[in-house]
Amino acid sequence: MQEDGEVITYRPIGLVENAFTAPVSPDILREAESRIVLDPALTEGLVGVEPGQRLMVIFHFHLSSAYDLLQHPRGDASRPQRGVFALRSPRRPNGIGVAVVEILAIEGNVLRVRGLDALNGTPVLDLKPA
Amino acid sequence: MQEDGEVITYRPIGLVENAFTAPVSPDILREAESRIVLDPALTEGLVGVEPGQRLMVIFHFHLSSAYDLLQHPRGDASRPQRGVFALRSPRRPNGIGVAVVEILAIEGNVLRVRGLDALNGTPVLDLKPA
Repeated sequence: MQEDGEVITYRPIGLVENAFTAPVSPDILREAESRIVLDPALTEGLVGVEPGQRLMVIFHFHLSSAYDLLQHPRGDASRPQRGVFALRSPRRPNGIGVAVVEILAIEGNVLRVRGLDALNGTPVLDLKPA
Repeated sequence: MQEDGEVITYRPIGLVENAFTAPVSPDILREAESRIVLDPALTEGLVGVEPGQRLMVIFHFHLSSAYDLLQHPRGDASRPQRGVFALRSPRRPNGIGVAVVEILAIEGNVLRVRGLDALNGTPVLDLKPA
């Protein structure tokens, strides 16, 4: 719980590269191709990950530093506020994002994917079977 | 990347409570009912989360402290090794687990759920629409 001061620390396993450096609609992001550049030391962890598969990508919303417990969906003030745990907003107590992507190609430590709603430079925390 | 020393820190938003304090088959865990006890200060974040819905739970494998890049699926030496990113093993570079659960009931800051393959005392990092 927050009051006991426990802290969990992770280090990025890689970074997202794409054409988007500033916030943009997640729909536009998901249409585009992104690259996940894995720490080369971890490349062996991709054995069994194949193009054409779907992959779960867990990442850190690095541009988000605050949150509200109640938010308008997609910041649209015409829609009623909802709790942050009923939303995928990046403005959350722990800035963790999850996307299921399609793997287009794997080139060494680099995965080319589609469906990733993360900006250029986003730290990647984990990859899992979707 | 690991070599640049960047560290990402999170604080648990809550804890898992169930009957399982030692590692057990994920199939057994998923059959059982668990409680997610949210930090009471975050309860308002549940507005719009309803019983009967599915919910994505992101948690920290708190009993796992090491990893191998190649592992036998479920520790079964008769099965060929695969990369950790092709597996859901808790022994991964960042010990993050993801489960999609069914919400049975919500009682204040406590969610009763089924389908959560996490042990008693597991720190919960985030909840999202599934």
